[in-house]
Amino acid sequence: MAKDVVIGKDERNTRLLVCDFLRLFYNNGWVTGTGGGICATSATGQVLTAPTGVHKERVQPADLFVVNSHNGEILRSPKKQLLRLSECAPIFCQIIERRCAGAVLHSHALSTVLAADASDTKDYLSIEGLEMLKGIANEHNKSRHIVPIVSNTMYERELCVAIEGALTDEAYSRSYCILVRDHGAYIWGKDIWETKRHAEVYHFLFEAVVARKQIRLNNGHAPSF
Amino acid sequence: MAKDVVIGKDERNTRLLVCDFLRLFYNNGWVTGTGGGICATSATGQVLTAPTGVHKERVQPADLFVVNSHNGEILRSPKKQLLRLSECAPIFCQIIERRCAGAVLHSHALSTVLAADASDTKDYLSIEGLEMLKGIANEHNKSRHIVPIVSNTMYERELCVAIEGALTDEAYSRSYCILVRDHGAYIWGKDIWETKRHAEVYHFLFEAVVARKQIRLNNGHAPSF
Amino acid sequence: MAKDVVIGKDERNTRLLVCDFLRLFYNNGWVTGTGGGICATSATGQVLTAPTGVHKERVQPADLFVVNSHNGEILRSPKKQLLRLSECAPIFCQIIERRCAGAVLHSHALSTVLAADASDTKDYLSIEGLEMLKGIANEHNKSRHIVPIVSNTMYERELCVAIEGALTDEAYSRSYCILVRDHGAYIWGKDIWETKRHAEVYHFLFEAVVARKQIRLNNGHAPSF
Amino acid sequence: MAKDVVIGKDERNTRLLVCDFLRLFYNNGWVTGTGGGICATSATGQVLTAPTGVHKERVQPADLFVVNSHNGEILRSPKKQLLRLSECAPIFCQIIERRCAGAVLHSHALSTVLAADASDTKDYLSIEGLEMLKGIANEHNKSRHIVPIVSNTMYERELCVAIEGALTDEAYSRSYCILVRDHGAYIWGKDIWETKRHAEVYHFLFEAVVARKQIRLNNGHAPSF
Repeated sequence: MAKDVVIGKDERNTRLLVCDFLRLFYNNGWVTGTGGGICATSATGQVLTAPTGVHKERVQPADLFVVNSHNGEILRSPKKQLLRLSECAPIFCQIIERRCAGAVLHSHALSTVLAADASDTKDYLSIEGLEMLKGIANEHNKSRHIVPIVSNTMYERELCVAIEGALTDEAYSRSYCILVRDHGAYIWGKDIWETKRHAEVYHFLFEAVVARKQIRLNNGHAPSF
Repeated sequence: MAKDVVIGKDERNTRLLVCDFLRLFYNNGWVTGTGGGICATSATGQVLTAPTGVHKERVQPADLFVVNSHNGEILRSPKKQLLRLSECAPIFCQIIERRCAGAVLHSHALSTVLAADASDTKDYLSIEGLEMLKGIANEHNKSRHIVPIVSNTMYERELCVAIEGALTDEAYSRSYCILVRDHGAYIWGKDIWETKRHAEVYHFLFEAVVARKQIRLNNGHAPSF
Repeated sequence: MAKDVVIGKDERNTRLLVCDFLRLFYNNGWVTGTGGGICATSATGQVLTAPTGVHKERVQPADLFVVNSHNGEILRSPKKQLLRLSECAPIFCQIIERRCAGAVLHSHALSTVLAADASDTKDYLSIEGLEMLKGIANEHNKSRHIVPIVSNTMYERELCVAIEGALTDEAYSRSYCILVRDHGAYIWGKDIWETKRHAEVYHFLFEAVVARKQIRLNNGHAPSF
Repeated sequence: MAKDVVIGKDERNTRLLVCDFLRLFYNNGWVTGTGGGICATSATGQVLTAPTGVHKERVQPADLFVVNSHNGEILRSPKKQLLRLSECAPIFCQIIERRCAGAVLHSHALSTVLAADASDTKDYLSIEGLEMLKGIANEHNKSRHIVPIVSNTMYERELCVAIEGALTDEAYSRSYCILVRDHGAYIWGKDIWETKRHAEVYHFLFEAVVARKQIRLNNGHAPSF
C-alpha cells in the first residue's frame, strides 16, 4: 500500500502540527493509554489520520494515514506495516462531511466522562453562565449552549448512527462537540487551529460544569443540570 | 499601520518577557482556548498589549501592539496584518491610569470563576487567614483582604463602567485584582514582575478559598464567606 | 560483583526506556519520594530492575540490576557500590513468572490508594462503564473488570503470599494489576510498552472511580461499589 | 559585604542543586508567588540560603547568602546588592542546630494549609495507614506519625519560639516537618537529598490526608482526625 509519493509543504506542516498537538493533548491527559485520536485535512481535502493502538505522544509525521473523507477509503498508508487506521476514521469523515470540519479531536479526558455524568440521563449537556463560551465559533457568553450526548457502544464504528443523528439534529447545530457517555468526546473546528481552541474551551467548560455541580450539591442546592 | 521603527533594548526585553509569561500562564491553565490577555508598559510609558483571538502561548515579541495608555490609541501595530488588538485594551489602560500599574494580566483560570461563585451574590470576595496574603503589596497576613467582583457583560468593553467603579471605590483600594463573575480576573502590579507575583498569589488564594469552602460545607459548618 | 560485560543493543535500549519511563512516571506523581519501582525483561529473559531508595527520576541506565526471574538471584549489579536491589524484586519475578509479564511498574500514586479505599473492605475493586477498559489487553468496554486488592504488610517481601494468591486466583485472571491497600499498585503487561499503556489506563480508571464515587455520595446516591 | 572568595567544588554543586530544586518545587506549586524558601549546608557547615522576595524558580547559584548556623550571622552576601536574606534564616538555623539538618525547605503548598486545617484545632496532625510513611527516615508503614502544628504569627521571626518548642518536644521527635497553620511547612533531612525525599513524602501524605478526610465526610463517617 505504501508508495513513494512527493508530499507537499502544506501536508508536511499539517503532519507536524498533528503530532505536535498529540504531544500537547497527551500532556493534558486527553489521549493517554493509547486512547483518543486526531485527524486534520490537508489543503487538497484529504484526511490525515493518526493510527490506532499507539502511544499518541510518540506518533511521527510519517505515521499518518491519508483517507478520502467522502467514502472513508485509505488513499495512502504509512510505511510502517504494523500501523492500523484509527477506528474513529469513519466518525472523523462523518464530521468533516456534515460540518465542513478541518480537523477533529477524539478526547478520552476524564472531564468529558464526568461532564456527561453531570447531565444525569439526559441526552444533552446544557452549559451557560461562562465567558469561555465565547471561545466557541459564533457563540456568545449569554448563550445556553447545548452539547449532544450519545450512548457508548461496544465498537467505535457502531457510534456512527447516533453521531449522524446528533450531527443532523437542528437542536445541536451550534455545537462543535459530541459527548459519548462513559467514553469521551469528539471536538472539531473549521481548521486544526480552531479545533485546538475548541478543544481547550470545551475541556475548560466540562471542568467548570463538574466543579460547579459538586459545589452546589455540597451547598444543599438542587442540581440545576 | 506597521512602520519600521527602531525598538530599544528595554522594549525588546519587555516584549520577550510578555511572551515568556504568556507561555507560563498558559501552562498554568490561565490563558487557554485563546482566552485571557496581558499588557506591560515600556520604560517610555507605552503599553505593549497582546493581540486577541490567538493562541496565547504562541504569541511572538513582534506580535504586540503599542498603545497610548491615556487615550487607548494604537501607536504601533504588528506587521502581521491579521492581528487585532485585545478587547481588554481599554480596561488595561484604565487600570494603568487609575492604579499606576506597570502590567496587567487578564486571567481565565477556572479558580477565578469558582472564587467569585464562593462569594455567593456579594460584590466582593473576602479573604483572610492565609500567609500568602503577604505576597500582595502592602498587605500582611492578618488582613481581611477584599477583592471586588463585577458582573459579566456581553462585550468586554462594557465592563469598563463597573471596572471604573471598582478601581475608584475606597473599599477596594488595597486590592490588585478585580474578579469578573463567570469570567475571570484582572490582576496587576507596579511592574511586570510584581504582576507575576500577584498573579501567582491571587490564584493560590482563590484555590485556597474554594478548597476551604468545599471542606467546610462537607463538615457541616455554615459557610463563612 | 560488578563485572565488565558487553551489553547488547536490545538491553541498552531497554535500560534507556526504563529510565525514560521512570522520569515520565515521576512527573505523573506515581514514583515520588523515592517510592515505587520498575523492571523490564531483556530479549534474553533477564530482568532489569531499578534500585531501591533512590530518586527514581534520576536513575541512569547503568544503575539497573540484572536478576534471574526464576530464582530472584542477582546476575549483575551496577558498578555504583551503594545501590541496593529493589525490595519489589521478588514480586516482580513472581508476576513475570506467573503472568509472562515483560515489565512491571510498582506505582505509589495517590489514586491507587484512594481507589482501594473506594472498595471499602472488599478484597477487590470492580470497575465498569468506562470505555478506557478497552485499553486493557483482551478486555472490552462492557466488561465488569475485577482488580484484586491485597492488604499491606510491614515489609514488601511479606506481600508475596497474598500476591501469589491474587495471581493464581481464577477470579482475577483478566487483571493486569494488583492493588495493595494503603500503599499502591503493581501493574504489568506483555512488554514494557503494554505496561506503559496499562499503567496509564489503570491510573485513569482509578481516578474515574474515585471521582464518580465522590459525586454519587454528594448526590445522595448509595455508593454502588 | 560581597567579597571575591574562591568557592570550592562542593559548595558550587550545592548552590546548583539548591537552584535546581527551587525550580522543581516551583513547578510543584510549593514556592510560588515568591513564597517559601530553602537552605542547604555546605561541607564546611556553612548555610547556603536563598534570598527573600524573589521569584524562587529564577534564583541563580550566585544569589545565595552564606550564614553561620550557630548565630545566624551573614558570612558572605551575594554581589547583587538588592537581595535580602530570607526571613526564614533564623528558623533554618534552629532546625539545623537542633536536628542536625543538612537542608531545610520552607513550603507554601496549598496541601500544607489544608492538612493543618484537617487537624481542626489540635496542635498536631496524626498520619497513619500509608506505606509512604516509610519514606520518612526511621519510620515504618505501621507508625502513627505525629507532625507538630504551630500557630502563624505576624512576622516569620516570631515563629521561633513555637518552632523551638516543637523541635524540643519529645512527642514530635520522629517528625522531620513542622506545619505552620494557614501558612505552610518546614521540612528537613540530614542532607539536601533526604530533604527532597522528605518534601515529596510529606506533600504526598498531606494530599492523602485531605483527600481521605473529604471522602469520609461525604461518606457520613465521623472524621477520625
